[in-house]
Amino acid sequence: MKNRQWRLRCEPKAQLSAADFELVEHEIDADPKLESGQIFVKNQIFLCAPAIRGWMSSSRPSHVPGINPGDPIISLGGGKVVKSANPKFPVGASAYYVGHWADYQVIDPAFTDARVIEAPLSLFEGVGIYTINMMTAYAGLIYVGEPQEGETLVVSGAAGSVGSAALQIGRIRKMRTIGIAGGKEKCDWVLNECGADAVIDYKHEDVAARLAELCPNRIDVFFDNVGGEILQAAVDNIAKFGRIVLCGQIGSYDERGPAPGPRDMMQIIYGSVKMQGFIVTDHPERYPAMLADLKKWVDSGLIRHREDVRRGFENLPTIYAALFHGENKGTLLAVVDDEALAKPR
Amino acid sequence: MKNRQWRLRCEPKAQLSAADFELVEHEIDADPKLESGQIFVKNQIFLCAPAIRGWMSSSRPSHVPGINPGDPIISLGGGKVVKSANPKFPVGASAYYVGHWADYQVIDPAFTDARVIEAPLSLFEGVGIYTINMMTAYAGLIYVGEPQEGETLVVSGAAGSVGSAALQIGRIRKMRTIGIAGGKEKCDWVLNECGADAVIDYKHEDVAARLAELCPNRIDVFFDNVGGEILQAAVDNIAKFGRIVLCGQIGSYDERGPAPGPRDMMQIIYGSVKMQGFIVTDHPERYPAMLADLKKWVDSGLIRHREDVRRGFENLPTIYAALFHGENKGTLLAVVDDEALAKPR
Repeated sequence: MKNRQWRLRCEPKAQLSAADFELVEHEIDADPKLESGQIFVKNQIFLCAPAIRGWMSSSRPSHVPGINPGDPIISLGGGKVVKSANPKFPVGASAYYVGHWADYQVIDPAFTDARVIEAPLSLFEGVGIYTINMMTAYAGLIYVGEPQEGETLVVSGAAGSVGSAALQIGRIRKMRTIGIAGGKEKCDWVLNECGADAVIDYKHEDVAARLAELCPNRIDVFFDNVGGEILQAAVDNIAKFGRIVLCGQIGSYDERGPAPGPRDMMQIIYGSVKMQGFIVTDHPERYPAMLADLKKWVDSGLIRHREDVRRGFENLPTIYAALFHGENKGTLLAVVDDEALAKPR
Repeated sequence: MKNRQWRLRCEPKAQLSAADFELVEHEIDADPKLESGQIFVKNQIFLCAPAIRGWMSSSRPSHVPGINPGDPIISLGGGKVVKSANPKFPVGASAYYVGHWADYQVIDPAFTDARVIEAPLSLFEGVGIYTINMMTAYAGLIYVGEPQEGETLVVSGAAGSVGSAALQIGRIRKMRTIGIAGGKEKCDWVLNECGADAVIDYKHEDVAARLAELCPNRIDVFFDNVGGEILQAAVDNIAKFGRIVLCGQIGSYDERGPAPGPRDMMQIIYGSVKMQGFIVTDHPERYPAMLADLKKWVDSGLIRHREDVRRGFENLPTIYAALFHGENKGTLLAVVDDEALAKPR
């Protein structure tokens, strides 16, 4: 049986582009021998997460997955179990897992975050809404940001899937919420659909000046998905005892290189400010509680979300690159088999 | 009556030097009229704290004291009450307060951190050991660093009054302790007197390489008094869930300008690292508990400390500048009246 696989051609040094990837086609056994616990899956959908860009970097820390030139691209995603040596993952089941940009592959749930997606969730929802993006927003805002009613929350990348959820969770927690996003369409969505109290268009406005204007009592919690100059603008306006939730640095993954911290750490010392990084998998024991809250809020319409669904296995590098050009509107999902969109049975 | 006062001549832009200060002599009333609550004091001792350098900076945040050109130098210190309109501060009492580099002045305890120093503490101890330095070490390590038994603690500026106390409190809390200091004399003191498990001489060793060597399981808590490249070396070796206690940036007060944060904030994100600034006055309600622990440890010899006592009102700028040249050995105190050294009655 033919199997296609996208591999890393070379480390994306400048602007990440489709040319950094190469498509390989090879023969695989359609009925592979599985070790106990393993499953053989047909991939149907991939979640395009900024973190994957970091895994391709040769300067990544040792405790994150590594994608070196020649390696298949590692990606969060999901698909259908075709063959199984694991009673928890029966043939025909839909599953979420960390896999490869490939048509088929063997997954060992013992070595990766993998779970069956069951009704009422479709595979699309299980991979799209309730995987890492909204969970990341929740973990970062609630556990790292320690929000208090009446405080001011500023979110960068506020039209993104993590950012928009963080902003709305802040709104649900009765914070005053200000989003930073790029362009009129995104800003309108943050303001009108996510219910932000104010929004700043970083493409057309001076972020530091607008933050000073909008936050006369300064920023209590800054949820940062961007880093660099946007982080600096927030530091310049952070309140005493402010908390900076370091979620991501979309601005630093690409040609601009690593984004440094604040220009003057004395601002952090004088302000008794906490800056804390985190990743969603830090505290898996909190997942059930997080999921229960999120599902309640999503089902009751308190949290708006949107998915930017694109199609085609052959388009994966182009789809993924959209993430770094501010082109996607919502959680970017690459569907490679339309069955991923089916309602759950 | 003649009164001398040191004032700021100009903002120290490059290397802080005695030329940035000017001595002014003026006539004052030897029996001034006091408003209710005020006291008239003769200054006897000043604590030379790095923070004062920040107060002289025109780019200081609005919520710290300001010393502009022409202003008297604000300093922590203490002296004797000469006249009083405050029953808590009787004439003849020794007191700690935030005052000026001046012979005499009026203090209003309602507007500054001021307290009577009583037996068994001498004024020298009340201003030297139990004011901000050891308290800062305690608050930073315990409340911000959240130390656990068996963890590895690294302290920069480990021969300094804050650093050496932080390291020893870590040792008392059963951490593995590594100090970073400059020069053989300081390193020997940290190792032999403070009981560090290891010491790195930043003047003669590659700090990042030595940290990697000494911390195979990486650094759990980094207590930073220095910033800049030393901070970066620690970030390069920080453990997952590490905590960086941002106490000071002695390296950034002077000609090198503000010290920036880490070069690549993704290291902080991936590592789920907490970097937190603080100042000792953040939680005054914790003082009594902190003081009780510290006094117990100091009295039983568990914490070694040393004071670098220098003399002479006319030498204040030169004495203070020693702080920025790594010349002082221990808490730098400027005694301007030897009565400050007297045993308490």
